[in-house]
Amino acid sequence: MTGLSIQMTDDKRDAVVKIEAELLKGARAYFEANGFTEVVVPHITRATGSCENMDTLFGLDFFGRQAYLRQTGQLYLESFVPRLGRVYCVGPSFRAEPTVDDRHLTEFTLVEIELPYDLNELMGHIEGTIFSMIQYILKNKQKEMEILGIDKRKLQDISIPFKKITYEDAINHLGLKWGSDLKSKDEHELMENFGNKPLFVTHYPREIKFFNMRKNRKKPEVVNSTDLLLPHAGESVGSAEREHEHDELITRLKESYMFKQLEKKGGTLEDFSWYLDVLKKGSIPHAGCGFGLNRITQFILGTSDIRHSTAFPQNMESLI
Amino acid sequence: MTGLSIQMTDDKRDAVVKIEAELLKGARAYFEANGFTEVVVPHITRATGSCENMDTLFGLDFFGRQAYLRQTGQLYLESFVPRLGRVYCVGPSFRAEPTVDDRHLTEFTLVEIELPYDLNELMGHIEGTIFSMIQYILKNKQKEMEILGIDKRKLQDISIPFKKITYEDAINHLGLKWGSDLKSKDEHELMENFGNKPLFVTHYPREIKFFNMRKNRKKPEVVNSTDLLLPHAGESVGSAEREHEHDELITRLKESYMFKQLEKKGGTLEDFSWYLDVLKKGSIPHAGCGFGLNRITQFILGTSDIRHSTAFPQNMESLI
Repeated sequence: MTGLSIQMTDDKRDAVVKIEAELLKGARAYFEANGFTEVVVPHITRATGSCENMDTLFGLDFFGRQAYLRQTGQLYLESFVPRLGRVYCVGPSFRAEPTVDDRHLTEFTLVEIELPYDLNELMGHIEGTIFSMIQYILKNKQKEMEILGIDKRKLQDISIPFKKITYEDAINHLGLKWGSDLKSKDEHELMENFGNKPLFVTHYPREIKFFNMRKNRKKPEVVNSTDLLLPHAGESVGSAEREHEHDELITRLKESYMFKQLEKKGGTLEDFSWYLDVLKKGSIPHAGCGFGLNRITQFILGTSDIRHSTAFPQNMESLI
Repeated sequence: MTGLSIQMTDDKRDAVVKIEAELLKGARAYFEANGFTEVVVPHITRATGSCENMDTLFGLDFFGRQAYLRQTGQLYLESFVPRLGRVYCVGPSFRAEPTVDDRHLTEFTLVEIELPYDLNELMGHIEGTIFSMIQYILKNKQKEMEILGIDKRKLQDISIPFKKITYEDAINHLGLKWGSDLKSKDEHELMENFGNKPLFVTHYPREIKFFNMRKNRKKPEVVNSTDLLLPHAGESVGSAEREHEHDELITRLKESYMFKQLEKKGGTLEDFSWYLDVLKKGSIPHAGCGFGLNRITQFILGTSDIRHSTAFPQNMESLI
């Protein structure tokens, strides 16, 4: 097939497509078995479809109004947690990544869940989902694993629960300063030093994360968040408890970097009004995460190049 | 919840969300049981993401290039049929609908399948998919049917195969001229006159349909296509055999209304080159369709207003 930035033989590309499909099947099977309801969320949105960094939003003209392509369905999903409990969505996340490299695509499949309660409950579901995905591959995609030269034992060796370290321990281990973001090479170093297995890094500094991640009540300089790192792929799942208290959330939103970016683009607090109204009405403690499907596929394939992880890898150069 | 154009009580909206999720589950269960592979297709595309009418494409600036939000994944899916056989995708279809009414949304979930062989084979899978969706609702969503006042017997009465009439018979019945498109009121009249059950209308005139619908070899003024009409919703599934012969397809593309629109936007045949290359390499007879999920939900709910069919109905006025 032409028009793609990466050349691959047909049999390998077909095998990747089947692996990708099976991972989705494994995730959905877990969600169905555990009472999650799928919610269809919007993809052309206002600011509430943004993740963190408004600079990588694709903008478009929506009948004379400024709209964006959503990066996340998180806030939309969250609005259903108080009544439906566990919810999920699957769909494209759009990022205007201005560089062509092996780590970024301009769109990728994001699998998101939101649920009542706390980070511990959530981490159990993240492990459960990833484990289910791996079991589906091991059970049903043996031929494809052979075609792609996937080390089966490496996958068989994965067990739950996954190892957990705090952000503080991670930066001490890496010799970094408090407040540093973990870069790709840092993630790879952690992977190597912690047995090349899935690893949760928990409790990041408040200021480097999304505005509605819930502050730790004992240690308010960190949020109750965790990123799951996977071998070859690095950060593959981002997650946190959400701030569900209305007034606290407004304070956090206003002090966030995201809000400053929004104001520069001519936005105001009104852009978040529908979401703030949900909280005003009364929300409940809840938490959620986004699984980057391509990163998980990278981990399964054992490749550091995200362009090998899907049928139509799209970036700045390869639009078809 | 605020920010939506339609006011609905929370318990009704929650029930709609659960119905929508269950319909997706019923469709996917059918696809899995029948050997369909899910393929992740792109959403920011060039012209090959367009359905028919390039006037309703949302455009966006993709790093200085003109891109569009896809209306269909059809051509991308088709490229996998020669090797993977039956394939499917589920995702948002974007339409820049400049009117606010009860029939159109600016984005809706489109479930698409492509498979080897012909229209008869395809119609069997369309019936099978819709029937599976109905059975999932009847079996698992009794509480939600009660909340929404859905007539259970109406759904229990649906059996397969569905009734089929030709376009020619349909226009004769309606007193329309050859070449007329069926309007919403025509569809409703057909529904009423054919027992308020799902109805296939087959073999539409070539000139009113998508360029790659395969010409009937005995009657070249029609294509081997069918639309499935559903009570309350009207046209809910559009489908056809695809032209898989390279030279014939180029002729058809060049004579199409779509191509004239593309040229007006500055496009050329080159926009279709990756797809034409797939056919050049050698394709096989195949057919496919798109299920408009919201229309199927409308049919289940018994509502003529599409804005009641999903959690976040988006149109020109209700962007959140």
